[in-house]
Amino acid sequence: MEIYNSRDEYRAALEARAALPAGFKAGVASLTFFPEELGRAKEYPMNLALILLDRPTPSFHALFTRNLFCGAPVIIGRERLKEKLARGILVNNKISNVAAPGGIEDQESVLAALAKAVGDRAERFFPASTGIIGWKLPAVEMRAKSEELASSLQSASLLPVAEAMMTTDAFPKVRSARCGEGVIVATAKGAGMIEPNLATMLVFVLTDLTISRSALKKCLTRSAAATLNRISIDSDQSTSDMIVALSSNCKTSVPEAAFARALEGVLGALSEDIVRNGEGVTHVLKVTVEGAPSVELAASAGKALVNSPLVKTAIFGNDPNVGRLVSSLGDFFGSRGFALPRSRLTVSIGAVEIFANDRFLLDEKREKRLLAYLTDCSFSLTGRFPPHDRSVEITVGLGAGTNSATVLGADLSYDYVKENASYRS
Amino acid sequence: MEIYNSRDEYRAALEARAALPAGFKAGVASLTFFPEELGRAKEYPMNLALILLDRPTPSFHALFTRNLFCGAPVIIGRERLKEKLARGILVNNKISNVAAPGGIEDQESVLAALAKAVGDRAERFFPASTGIIGWKLPAVEMRAKSEELASSLQSASLLPVAEAMMTTDAFPKVRSARCGEGVIVATAKGAGMIEPNLATMLVFVLTDLTISRSALKKCLTRSAAATLNRISIDSDQSTSDMIVALSSNCKTSVPEAAFARALEGVLGALSEDIVRNGEGVTHVLKVTVEGAPSVELAASAGKALVNSPLVKTAIFGNDPNVGRLVSSLGDFFGSRGFALPRSRLTVSIGAVEIFANDRFLLDEKREKRLLAYLTDCSFSLTGRFPPHDRSVEITVGLGAGTNSATVLGADLSYDYVKENASYRS
Repeated sequence: MEIYNSRDEYRAALEARAALPAGFKAGVASLTFFPEELGRAKEYPMNLALILLDRPTPSFHALFTRNLFCGAPVIIGRERLKEKLARGILVNNKISNVAAPGGIEDQESVLAALAKAVGDRAERFFPASTGIIGWKLPAVEMRAKSEELASSLQSASLLPVAEAMMTTDAFPKVRSARCGEGVIVATAKGAGMIEPNLATMLVFVLTDLTISRSALKKCLTRSAAATLNRISIDSDQSTSDMIVALSSNCKTSVPEAAFARALEGVLGALSEDIVRNGEGVTHVLKVTVEGAPSVELAASAGKALVNSPLVKTAIFGNDPNVGRLVSSLGDFFGSRGFALPRSRLTVSIGAVEIFANDRFLLDEKREKRLLAYLTDCSFSLTGRFPPHDRSVEITVGLGAGTNSATVLGADLSYDYVKENASYRS
Repeated sequence: MEIYNSRDEYRAALEARAALPAGFKAGVASLTFFPEELGRAKEYPMNLALILLDRPTPSFHALFTRNLFCGAPVIIGRERLKEKLARGILVNNKISNVAAPGGIEDQESVLAALAKAVGDRAERFFPASTGIIGWKLPAVEMRAKSEELASSLQSASLLPVAEAMMTTDAFPKVRSARCGEGVIVATAKGAGMIEPNLATMLVFVLTDLTISRSALKKCLTRSAAATLNRISIDSDQSTSDMIVALSSNCKTSVPEAAFARALEGVLGALSEDIVRNGEGVTHVLKVTVEGAPSVELAASAGKALVNSPLVKTAIFGNDPNVGRLVSSLGDFFGSRGFALPRSRLTVSIGAVEIFANDRFLLDEKREKRLLAYLTDCSFSLTGRFPPHDRSVEITVGLGAGTNSATVLGADLSYDYVKENASYRS
């Protein structure tokens, strides 16, 4: 992971990554509105961003949150998967359109106006929204922006979209990989794995490599499971999380395995960007669980660790609190009635083994090494983007199988509490 | 719940509650030690507390954490349940004796020395420890305190024990209830539902009411399930949580239903004391889930709500963020594949209904009422113990059955992060 010394330098790197694949255009527009829910007392800004294929494509797929109280965009998006062709994605920030009266109708009316402006049908567009739950979309104001949005389309860069859909994200996120004659470009918005009010995870994957719909579905599902589904900032999944992939089929296809590998690389890098940009994050945690009877159990155990408030606060404090790590694992396995042989468990932080043979390997020297390691892994405000590429690497050996998984998480800081206690005003 | 205007006033009330049942004595002693793990660089204080029956009793039971990496006291305690008679409980703070080399042998040697000092067998004593994980007990120093501990025994009050086992607890916790000719007295230590390093939940229940071992086991298990197992400060269960109940059988028995009712009242009040005293807690959350297909599902859904970092931080900020509440419920039910009919869900905060008919009932007036309600429920530093008896009452109706459960939780504040990031030094 490269580190950039200024926001300008980072942006220049993003420009290079964000070159649109052949067959795509992107555009943005902004508007202001008065929320009805606040009695129209205060004006809010909103961005609209459009990703448009030059021609409708049969090669598309999307994955959605499992949250039962999902937003209108998720409900509509699931319907879109029944369509034969897709033409693009319309995303807005500020209002997530979840559980608001008339949410589906409002969103469809906005898509219809947009489709008309670009000469296609509303059913070929995926809507995506992030922002406050419960509020109504300003559909009138949004519809009025359709022509402006259409006329803003350009075929050079995805970066304006990446920037327009940001909420509390500290920096925009774009990753790309060349593959054969084509390219895979993806952008993400999300400052927590979920923050239902504003930090929903939205991911859009664009490629010009020819690929069948079924192959794209398979590759996207598998790659997301190994990357985006292995990160957690605060353990919830939002009402609005979605991943949409589109191919323009403009370039010669590559073998499916090569496509899958490139896609997983892009989504893996994007996952790390999301965590490194998490709300109030001062340490990135990278937990690898090895020796598990299944990949799923390894991933679940890793998530239990990175979601423990006690582990997260200890890491924030640069406290090599190995007791909390082991306790959290013990809670996870004990609660599931999983009879892990305690004597086989091994735990390391960085290069320091801290638990083996059912006992802690603690002494003054190891504690000092761990403190120095954690301190070195913490972010400081250097003006660099991201601050650095180091993670607190925790390795857990279960001695109960041959499967492993790596999970990314974050610490729990004052700033996380501050940002989440004070948002909405 | 009564509120006391000063620590002295609160302590006077506790004195009244803490009168020991007939047939019990209590004693405390303090010591200092140099942890081997720190290269004996720094001196630490430790308290020992003893609860002793005048005569061994056949009427005892204990419940333990399900954490797989449980401490030596839990491993030993489980063995004690195979004994015919129990004589008492020895508790220490500062070191939890979890995953430390020789932990079981050390703890048994301390119990043996104590048993000798009071003229009984080590097998009749339950050990209980709370504090740092991974460190070795200072067994030599602890054993040397046996005679002092025995000579400190008095039959008046449990309060010295309640105070000696405190760690980050802001105030000691004792609840009691008269029942027939006897009394049930219980004390708890715990500043989080768990805080593996120091805020383990230890609960000791003493009664003089004659009761069979099997009836005590049944009553304790059921009462704890409905009270102590329905609270959560930070979602983990510790390596050392335990509940031990002893009866001296000195007083005439009461009908089992009457005993069960009294015990549940005592443990319910103690549960609320534990949460109201949680680390960095500034709001107590009381979530009632109604209309559930089972009590277990109602309790699990309630815990999902009170454990959501996003809900917890919003409540800390007095933010009536109803979106996060509903999203958290949606995540819980969606992840479990539970097809809750969305249109039947109702959610209220205090007396304000915020969700019904699959939509939010949000407007400026309701938001203002909710803000005032949350602000009124927050703690401030008044010098009173506890600050007040108000809770943020959240009621969720699922419309999917006739069962309900109430769960207690807490918000997530700067002070929680501070306390948990900086402990151990």
